[in-house]
Amino acid sequence: MNKKYAHAGLDQKLPALKTFPSQFKDYEITIVIPEFTSVCPKTKQPDFGTITIRYTPDKVCIELKSLKMYIGAYRNIGIFYENIVNRILEDFVTSCKPIQATVIGEFNPRGGIRSIIEAHYPRK
Amino acid sequence: MNKKYAHAGLDQKLPALKTFPSQFKDYEITIVIPEFTSVCPKTKQPDFGTITIRYTPDKVCIELKSLKMYIGAYRNIGIFYENIVNRILEDFVTSCKPIQATVIGEFNPRGGIRSIIEAHYPRK
Amino acid sequence: MNKKYAHAGLDQKLPALKTFPSQFKDYEITIVIPEFTSVCPKTKQPDFGTITIRYTPDKVCIELKSLKMYIGAYRNIGIFYENIVNRILEDFVTSCKPIQATVIGEFNPRGGIRSIIEAHYPRK
Amino acid sequence: MNKKYAHAGLDQKLPALKTFPSQFKDYEITIVIPEFTSVCPKTKQPDFGTITIRYTPDKVCIELKSLKMYIGAYRNIGIFYENIVNRILEDFVTSCKPIQATVIGEFNPRGGIRSIIEAHYPRK
Amino acid sequence: MNKKYAHAGLDQKLPALKTFPSQFKDYEITIVIPEFTSVCPKTKQPDFGTITIRYTPDKVCIELKSLKMYIGAYRNIGIFYENIVNRILEDFVTSCKPIQATVIGEFNPRGGIRSIIEAHYPRK
Amino acid sequence: MNKKYAHAGLDQKLPALKTFPSQFKDYEITIVIPEFTSVCPKTKQPDFGTITIRYTPDKVCIELKSLKMYIGAYRNIGIFYENIVNRILEDFVTSCKPIQATVIGEFNPRGGIRSIIEAHYPRK
Amino acid sequence: MNKKYAHAGLDQKLPALKTFPSQFKDYEITIVIPEFTSVCPKTKQPDFGTITIRYTPDKVCIELKSLKMYIGAYRNIGIFYENIVNRILEDFVTSCKPIQATVIGEFNPRGGIRSIIEAHYPRK
Amino acid sequence: MNKKYAHAGLDQKLPALKTFPSQFKDYEITIVIPEFTSVCPKTKQPDFGTITIRYTPDKVCIELKSLKMYIGAYRNIGIFYENIVNRILEDFVTSCKPIQATVIGEFNPRGGIRSIIEAHYPRK
Amino acid sequence: MNKKYAHAGLDQKLPALKTFPSQFKDYEITIVIPEFTSVCPKTKQPDFGTITIRYTPDKVCIELKSLKMYIGAYRNIGIFYENIVNRILEDFVTSCKPIQATVIGEFNPRGGIRSIIEAHYPRK
Amino acid sequence: MNKKYAHAGLDQKLPALKTFPSQFKDYEITIVIPEFTSVCPKTKQPDFGTITIRYTPDKVCIELKSLKMYIGAYRNIGIFYENIVNRILEDFVTSCKPIQATVIGEFNPRGGIRSIIEAHYPRK
Repeated sequence: MNKKYAHAGLDQKLPALKTFPSQFKDYEITIVIPEFTSVCPKTKQPDFGTITIRYTPDKVCIELKSLKMYIGAYRNIGIFYENIVNRILEDFVTSCKPIQATVIGEFNPRGGIRSIIEAHYPRK
Repeated sequence: MNKKYAHAGLDQKLPALKTFPSQFKDYEITIVIPEFTSVCPKTKQPDFGTITIRYTPDKVCIELKSLKMYIGAYRNIGIFYENIVNRILEDFVTSCKPIQATVIGEFNPRGGIRSIIEAHYPRK
Repeated sequence: MNKKYAHAGLDQKLPALKTFPSQFKDYEITIVIPEFTSVCPKTKQPDFGTITIRYTPDKVCIELKSLKMYIGAYRNIGIFYENIVNRILEDFVTSCKPIQATVIGEFNPRGGIRSIIEAHYPRK
Repeated sequence: MNKKYAHAGLDQKLPALKTFPSQFKDYEITIVIPEFTSVCPKTKQPDFGTITIRYTPDKVCIELKSLKMYIGAYRNIGIFYENIVNRILEDFVTSCKPIQATVIGEFNPRGGIRSIIEAHYPRK
Repeated sequence: MNKKYAHAGLDQKLPALKTFPSQFKDYEITIVIPEFTSVCPKTKQPDFGTITIRYTPDKVCIELKSLKMYIGAYRNIGIFYENIVNRILEDFVTSCKPIQATVIGEFNPRGGIRSIIEAHYPRK
Repeated sequence: MNKKYAHAGLDQKLPALKTFPSQFKDYEITIVIPEFTSVCPKTKQPDFGTITIRYTPDKVCIELKSLKMYIGAYRNIGIFYENIVNRILEDFVTSCKPIQATVIGEFNPRGGIRSIIEAHYPRK
Repeated sequence: MNKKYAHAGLDQKLPALKTFPSQFKDYEITIVIPEFTSVCPKTKQPDFGTITIRYTPDKVCIELKSLKMYIGAYRNIGIFYENIVNRILEDFVTSCKPIQATVIGEFNPRGGIRSIIEAHYPRK
Repeated sequence: MNKKYAHAGLDQKLPALKTFPSQFKDYEITIVIPEFTSVCPKTKQPDFGTITIRYTPDKVCIELKSLKMYIGAYRNIGIFYENIVNRILEDFVTSCKPIQATVIGEFNPRGGIRSIIEAHYPRK
Repeated sequence: MNKKYAHAGLDQKLPALKTFPSQFKDYEITIVIPEFTSVCPKTKQPDFGTITIRYTPDKVCIELKSLKMYIGAYRNIGIFYENIVNRILEDFVTSCKPIQATVIGEFNPRGGIRSIIEAHYPRK
Repeated sequence: MNKKYAHAGLDQKLPALKTFPSQFKDYEITIVIPEFTSVCPKTKQPDFGTITIRYTPDKVCIELKSLKMYIGAYRNIGIFYENIVNRILEDFVTSCKPIQATVIGEFNPRGGIRSIIEAHYPRK
């Protein structure tokens, strides 16, 4: 895999993630999005998967509508699985500043092989 | 999300949670309520979900009939997911004074996105 | 819930739990009884559920036939969920003197609400 | 069950079901609504269930948004299971004039008993 | 199996099945009761199973509360599987006079053998 | 497969199937036995499977206890799948004289291959 | 729903469906595509679903690679559920000229409502 | 797809299917083989699937061991799905001469698309 | 349970468990045997269950064929559940000398009661 | 098992595993391959199973296409279960140099016995 693809989709501009003030402390939110789709940067074929975000909010929670627009914007972007999950984590942490967060991407099989990527914040 | 909605449903009066004296020490009770429904404060559309309460009773247990009336009273109240779960936890702790308690709300998908909220007492 | 019901079924005489000498040390036995039924002391309506007993035997194991008679004897006794599980644990510990034991009662939904009670020996 | 309840909810005004012109002939549409809720006319307690509508359109199809408003309007109406399913069938047939239609209501257990009601148009 | 058991439970008096007038024609009602229990006339051991009643009402429908009392009354009656299902069918047909009816009893395994009994009205 | 095995287990004496008089007409009985085991006549290795018998009784029903002894007696008999199912059907029909009967044998995989045999009475 | 949307996506040019000569007669092919996605013509929001095509080939079979390109081309087209399924059927029949064909679209829930559309060739 | 591939794998020699005399008349045998694998003639990539054979034997039954060798021999043969299922049917009918037979091939997804092929004897 | 049964099956000679040299260090092997059957020493009725062995090999691994013969030899031995699991563990440890090992026996329900026995080496 | 088989398949040359630079730190990748097949070195019969690789990448990730070629190359190699899993782990660690890695092989039942092998890097 040459350099051309390695960064594909990482710098592309995406809709802003909005937040709203949390009314409580010390609880956990899990969001499951089974309708994720993007494009393979090499083959231009569509990829499909389920994205799960689990986090402990600090001052703000993610607004679901802006998250939906953000996730939907990957639809026509060429980007690899590893980069999808890690970019979502970074964008999420930047906007929500959670106490902790996990992003999991479970992707549909390609050529009989199924991939699951999981990334945590704070990085260990 | 403006201020108008942020507190929606948090101050609304709800039926009292009643208790009865526990006859034993050091055990755990889990109550699963798959028929929770409330209203989205913004769109006025109904929300549906399953509420799970797990707790270690101290001196008293929750009376199921009063819990049923309490949960049923959310039916026509406009309130967000995060506030539902955290308010149930606070009301439950106030009435039962348990040694520990967890409330989980698993809500039906909206726009292809499913949310799960989980809150614990005592707060960490 | 007044006093009349709080102790219902706790003092009722039940068939003796018999035991037999364990031939080995340091292992765990789990017994699942999906055919538990008793009566609600207030409404006189039947309750149904699954009782699970998990224990580490010391000198003796529970004899399954006597356990079956003991559990079957709840059939026409009026007793609450919390008391069922805790009484089974106490009766079991008295007869088997296990190193440790757990009793779990998972009861069928009533009014859309499902209850699970779990008690451990030794009490923490 | 006296007369007072027998007709409960049958004459109550509900939001109009809207339609749009079908572009094709001879196909079948199935709509599954797992978030139905109404109220028992006798006990005033909420009922929950899944409504399924399957039909062969003639000139028009049901508009999903108006169906959602129509179904949502049962939320605070006191009405029995049999009447729910048969009224939905009659209202649906009146607005859509389908070649054939089936309505099925699968209701959550009450007192350990689960009910399913199924009605067809044209009546045999 | 001698004569003593063959008729066991067939002549025992049971609570009356009540009905209410059906408001519609030509539809089907299915009632599932997973909490059936009775007693084996020979061994006196409890039996457990699920009873399903499916019928096309004519003038009246079965009242669920009276059905619940009727089914609950088998709790301490000694009666065989085949007789349970056929007696329920006969009692149901006598009280409801349905256009057609089916009763199915699915009983829990005994000695590794599971039994299902199904009877129809009108008899072929 | 030579002649030696073709009839294996077909002439072996088995415990008698007993019956009791049916109290009703025109109903169907299904018996599921997931604990069938026999021996492969060629390899002497054990076979395992589930036997299902479904029949419409005429004058008599099969007594479950005698069926259990009959099925259990295959435990150490060398016999092929096809012969197991057809012999059970013939023995069953001889003793019960049912209006109709079906026997199904679903056997555990051997060498990655799973077999299901199904035979009906009356033969078409 | 006004006219603007009623025909949306029906006249849009799509990649050609290619075929190859069938080597046999009288058999059935089922193709399941769980990764269908298109756009709602009104809300511009993505829709997701599973498309199933079942057909009896006459002289030719569909080439899977061209079907994949054809289905993938719906990705950014605004079109309603009913039109998706019926257009796929028409395009399929035009290119494959099968003896018979069925297309089923099972779409993910929107607003708690799930839709399934099924169309057959030849039209009855 | 050019001619080169259309016949791939149809003329390749395979191990003989052996049979043994059936001891009974009028019954049905189903054989499920979830470990089928072959090679795509175009891409040379392996294909995987489950083959199911269901038949009514006439004079002979298929010997499972020879079937296993026959099916295993597809392992390194380049052949399309449609040809796999139809060739198995033809080879099976030639050796067993059954009264009727069905072969079903359910193949693992490739590029998100799952294929099922079903062929019957006698051809309609 | 008198002494006669307590040791039943513990001293009976069984086929030897063979081993082969492990080529690697520090890994775990799990073996699942869903076709276990033995005989109840008291009732002489067959018992059925699934045996699972999980271990970390030291110098040798268990040879599957000898394990199959060893397990198959319980077929006609009268022995209680607790003794089955503990004897398998002891015999396994004697022949394989693993770093650690667990044996679990999950037995089919008898009289509506299901038993699971689990033993570990080294004993705590 | 003699020496001839003990090393079978361990020294056989396999296609190279390729990698690409990871763009992020501290995350986990899981790859599931349900289409693994190899050959038993003793019986020459095919084995089937699912291989799962879970790892924390350091500088590079495994390229899925090369992994697919590598796994596919076991197709005609004679090798035991334990050696399959441990060799994949060693080859994977050599090419990817991950921070940690686990390989799990879940193999289809043979003679009613199912095997699961699990190996970790770094070895404890």
